[in-house]
Amino acid sequence: MTMVPAPGDPLGLIRNAAIGIQDGRIVRVGRRTELAGTRATEVVPLGGAFVTPGLVDCHTHLVFGGTRAAEHAQRRAGASYEEIAAAGGGIASTVRATAAASVTALLAQSRTRLHALMRGGVTTVEIKSGYGLDPASELRLLNVIRTLARSEPVRIEPTLLALHALPPGADREAFVERVIEDLLPTAARLGLATSVDAFCEGIAFTPEETARLFEAAAAAGLPVRLHAEQLSNSNGAALAAHHRALSADHLEHLDEAGARAMAESGTVAVLLPGAFYTLRETRVPPVDLLRRHGVRIAVASDCNPGTSPSLVPQLAMNMACNLFGLSPEEAIVGMTRNAALALGLEQEVGTVEPGKAADLAVWRIAEPAELGYWLGLLPERRIFGGQDSLPQP
Amino acid sequence: MTMVPAPGDPLGLIRNAAIGIQDGRIVRVGRRTELAGTRATEVVPLGGAFVTPGLVDCHTHLVFGGTRAAEHAQRRAGASYEEIAAAGGGIASTVRATAAASVTALLAQSRTRLHALMRGGVTTVEIKSGYGLDPASELRLLNVIRTLARSEPVRIEPTLLALHALPPGADREAFVERVIEDLLPTAARLGLATSVDAFCEGIAFTPEETARLFEAAAAAGLPVRLHAEQLSNSNGAALAAHHRALSADHLEHLDEAGARAMAESGTVAVLLPGAFYTLRETRVPPVDLLRRHGVRIAVASDCNPGTSPSLVPQLAMNMACNLFGLSPEEAIVGMTRNAALALGLEQEVGTVEPGKAADLAVWRIAEPAELGYWLGLLPERRIFGGQDSLPQP
Ligand SMILES: [Zn+2]
Ligand SMILES: [Zn+2]
Repeated sequence: MTMVPAPGDPLGLIRNAAIGIQDGRIVRVGRRTELAGTRATEVVPLGGAFVTPGLVDCHTHLVFGGTRAAEHAQRRAGASYEEIAAAGGGIASTVRATAAASVTALLAQSRTRLHALMRGGVTTVEIKSGYGLDPASELRLLNVIRTLARSEPVRIEPTLLALHALPPGADREAFVERVIEDLLPTAARLGLATSVDAFCEGIAFTPEETARLFEAAAAAGLPVRLHAEQLSNSNGAALAAHHRALSADHLEHLDEAGARAMAESGTVAVLLPGAFYTLRETRVPPVDLLRRHGVRIAVASDCNPGTSPSLVPQLAMNMACNLFGLSPEEAIVGMTRNAALALGLEQEVGTVEPGKAADLAVWRIAEPAELGYWLGLLPERRIFGGQDSLPQP
Repeated sequence: MTMVPAPGDPLGLIRNAAIGIQDGRIVRVGRRTELAGTRATEVVPLGGAFVTPGLVDCHTHLVFGGTRAAEHAQRRAGASYEEIAAAGGGIASTVRATAAASVTALLAQSRTRLHALMRGGVTTVEIKSGYGLDPASELRLLNVIRTLARSEPVRIEPTLLALHALPPGADREAFVERVIEDLLPTAARLGLATSVDAFCEGIAFTPEETARLFEAAAAAGLPVRLHAEQLSNSNGAALAAHHRALSADHLEHLDEAGARAMAESGTVAVLLPGAFYTLRETRVPPVDLLRRHGVRIAVASDCNPGTSPSLVPQLAMNMACNLFGLSPEEAIVGMTRNAALALGLEQEVGTVEPGKAADLAVWRIAEPAELGYWLGLLPERRIFGGQDSLPQP
C-alpha cells in the first residue's frame, strides 16, 4: 500500500511490489519485475505481507506522570465527574503527578509508552505538552519531548498545548496573558515546538482566548491546531480554519459551517475514537458531513492518561471503523497520508514514494481491510529510516 | 497478585514478594524477607513490577481459515445481517474458508493468533472447534488444536463446539443425530476434547437439542459449557446449570432464574465484551445480578473471526471494565482464578500458590487497576512452566 491514491484505488496498491531504499530514503517503488534490473546491496524478501508507510500518530499526550487508573475504576463504579474533580481527580491529578515526577522518571514512563506505539508500527508521532500548565513546567515537558526525539528511532513532532486547563486557583486573564507573552514566544525561540494547540470548550478556554493564542502563534511563526467540538459546539473548527490550522481534532459536535470552513482552509479533521470509547460517548463525529465537504480525515490514538490510555495504534483504526463507520481504507489513509498532512509533514512521510523517508510497517495480513478489523494487531516489522527497529517489551 | 483471596483483598496482594519455582511448579510464595533463607539456583529480580498468574483465556474460537474483514467493512457501511448472510457471509463463510485451508495453512494462521495471545500474557487458553460443522471436519479442527497444544509452550483446553450452526441445506434432525451419535463419542474416545459446547439461540439450536447433546456428553464423561443468552433469552443458562455446566458464556439477556440456577450449580459466568463491542450491542450482561447471586464471573477474549477478532487479551479486561462496569479486581480475577474454574483447571492454574504450575505474567505497572485501564497493555515477561517464553511478532 503506497498510499499514493489513484482513481478507484485510495491505497495505491502495488501487488508483488519492491521498494528501493538508499541512505534512509525511498528511491524506487514499483512492481518487482519492473525493478528487477536494479542493483541492490541487500535484498530483504517480505513475501506474502503487506507494507504500509510507517504509521503516523498525529495526536498524543504521551508525556505525563502517574496514571488515572484508580479514577477510571471510580468512574465505572458510578462516581460522577464532579465527584472525581472534587476529590482532586481529572487533569489536575495528572498535572500533580507530572510535577511530582523527576525528569528521569518522566522519560522512563514516556519511553515505555513510546516503545509501545513504535512496536505498533508508528514511525512518526506528535506529542503535546499540556500537563505542566504554567510556563516553566510546560517548557520542562517540551524538553522531555526533545530528549525522547533525540534518543529514539522515531520522528517526533512536538506541540505546545498552551491552553489546556486553567491551573487551580489561577487568575484566568493573567494566566492566558502569561501563556501568550511568555510561554509561547519562549517555546518558539528555543525551537521546542512545531505547532501550537489549545482546548476550546466550555470547561476549558473560550473561542476569544483561543483566537488570541492563535494570533500570537502566527506572530511567532508557528502553525496551530485545536481540540474542537469534543463535548459541545463552540465553533472551534471554524475558528481553527480561520487561522489556517493544520488540524481540528475530536469534532463530535461539528456542524456544517465548521466542516465547510475546514474544507476551505485545508484543515485536517483528526478523529480520536479511543477517547470516544473510553468516555462512552454516544455522539459520533459527522463523518458523512466531512466526506461531503471533502475534508481530509485523519485518525490518531490520542494516547493520554485521562480519556484514551491507548498503547496499540492499530486499535484507533479498528475503533474508527467500528465506532465511527469509517471504511478500512479511510482509516488507513487516516493514519498515514492524512496524518502526515495534519502534521505538515506531507513532503516527508505518509506515503511510500521516492524521496520520502524509508519509514515502513510490514503487516502479516491477507487484505488491507484487516487493518480496520483486528483488535490489537501488531506489525511483523517496523522500518525507520531504512533500518529495522521494533522495540521489545 | 497471587489471586488467593483474603478478606478485603480479592487479589491476594503480597508486596515485595518472592516466588520459588522448581521443576515448572510453584513451591513457595511469600514476602521476600520470609523466603530469604531459601536456597535457589537462580534468582531473577523483577523489581517494581507486578506479577499475576499467567492469563487464562477461557473462551476462544482461535482455529479458523480466512478472516471476515471484508464482511465487517460491509456491515459498517450499512449492509444488514440478512444481506451479508444472503451473500454467503457469516459463519458459513468461515466454514468455507476453513474447509478450503490445508492443515498446514490452518496451523500457521492459528499459531500466529496463538502467539499474539501468548505475547499478551496468556499461558492457558481454551480453543473450540466449531467451524467444521460435519463430524469429519470437526475432528480435523480438533486435531489441529491438538497439534498446537503439543508444539507450543501454552496449556490448551480443547472444546468440541458440537452444535454451532446447521450446515447449509442439512436436515436438522439428521444433523443433530449425527453429532450426538458419531462426532461426540468419537471425539471423546480419541481424547480430542475436554468439554462439549453448543450455541443455544433462536438462530442456532434449541434448548431441546442442546439438552440432548448435554445428556450424550454426560454419557461420554465430558463436562459441558454453553453459549447462552447472547442475543435473546432462551433459558440457556438454567439449562446449562441443570447439566452442571462448567460455564455459561455471553449472558447479555440472562434473567434472575438463570443467575440463581448458575449460582446453585457453580456454573461460571463467562463475559465476552469483545463480541459486545464488535457487534455494537447495547444490552450489557446483568453484572449486579451475578454479583448478588454470588455467581463467579470470568472474562475472555472470545477470539473469533466474526464477532471478536481480538489479539490482545488485556483488552478483554479493559472492555469488561469500560463496557460492562466490572471493577479492575473483578476483571483480573476473571482472567485468572475464575477463568481457571471455568475450565475445571482450578487445581492447576489461575493463582500463584505452591503446587500450581509456574505460569506467570510480569506487568510493568504501578497498581493492579492498570490492567483494566490501558488499551492494549502487553506484559514485560511471560513465564510458562517456569520458563521465560514471550513469542515475538
Ligand atoms: Zn488531545
Ligand atoms: Zn464463542
